[in-house]
Amino acid sequence: MNSQRFAVTDLMTRFIRQIPEGDDRERLMCPDCGHVAYENPKVVVGSVVAEGDHILLCRRAIQPRAGFWTIPAGYMELGETAEEGAAREAWEEARVRIALDGVLAVYSIARIGQVQVIFRARFAEPGFAPGPESLEVARFHWSEIPWEELAFPSVHWALKAWRDSAHGALPAAALNPQEDRRGVHRLPVAS
Amino acid sequence: MNSQRFAVTDLMTRFIRQIPEGDDRERLMCPDCGHVAYENPKVVVGSVVAEGDHILLCRRAIQPRAGFWTIPAGYMELGETAEEGAAREAWEEARVRIALDGVLAVYSIARIGQVQVIFRARFAEPGFAPGPESLEVARFHWSEIPWEELAFPSVHWALKAWRDSAHGALPAAALNPQEDRRGVHRLPVAS
Repeated sequence: MNSQRFAVTDLMTRFIRQIPEGDDRERLMCPDCGHVAYENPKVVVGSVVAEGDHILLCRRAIQPRAGFWTIPAGYMELGETAEEGAAREAWEEARVRIALDGVLAVYSIARIGQVQVIFRARFAEPGFAPGPESLEVARFHWSEIPWEELAFPSVHWALKAWRDSAHGALPAAALNPQEDRRGVHRLPVAS
Repeated sequence: MNSQRFAVTDLMTRFIRQIPEGDDRERLMCPDCGHVAYENPKVVVGSVVAEGDHILLCRRAIQPRAGFWTIPAGYMELGETAEEGAAREAWEEARVRIALDGVLAVYSIARIGQVQVIFRARFAEPGFAPGPESLEVARFHWSEIPWEELAFPSVHWALKAWRDSAHGALPAAALNPQEDRRGVHRLPVAS
């Protein structure tokens, strides 16, 4: 992950914020030609990589939260699928080749304009090592996860979502936990 | 949905494409100050809204695919969660208040830099009507879905993913179907 989230809009110093015709919210617009520069949330793709009851974590070499532990994750790139992005990040950060089971969680971090798509994954090949953005990479038994040294709340959430299925069938994707949920009321599902 | 996907980058005419130090792919960079303008995939949020065996579809009033049927979906906005975005689009396009069950599917349309997060939803209140981007809105019994007049392949996929669970427990999120899948090999899941 990096912190370049709003880089493009920083450039738009001559742009103005106004509501385009037919729209209902302010956009960055060119005052000369009326061109609208849409700003959109960014997608983070990542994975909980497990072998038995051991989970792969990376200790971050970069800010934010350098020195803290995270799952392999980062910004999705143009031209790749979410699955490819998660596998690329696992390679870049942990030099591990992974196989994906499916979607473990979809988290929204609205405050920073981020959607995280987290996969459940396993080792496709043995071996791992720190990539350039990691100080170290290690497998932790579930009982030894360094909960106090995790980099982000969503790493907590993803690990707990992993524990709920672990080696069984993958359930419906987890969403933000109750304490960080807002907005849309959900009815109980008829079964 | 609209087709403003690469609007910001169209503006970057004085920017050059080169690989920033420490990166491994070409980015749009300012030749004067070295500022990097990252380009990222966009998130589409949508929902399959059902009542019994009836599905809500909207006939598009706008391009692309005007006149064809789709589920309520559109670009996620900054500051909202994926769930809020799906509910907002359902209101904007179909004047329907929905309640979300959870994530039905996560589709990657890498060719156009898009990730779609599709929810399974139900009517939270009775009533629906076309919003400004819809010619009409209708409930179709599953046996009457206008398959030949659907707007996008991912509408087909989402409806078929809905049929696989319908009123039961929501399973793991669907991913691109086999005929549109690439990249990351998935191992069979141990059960």
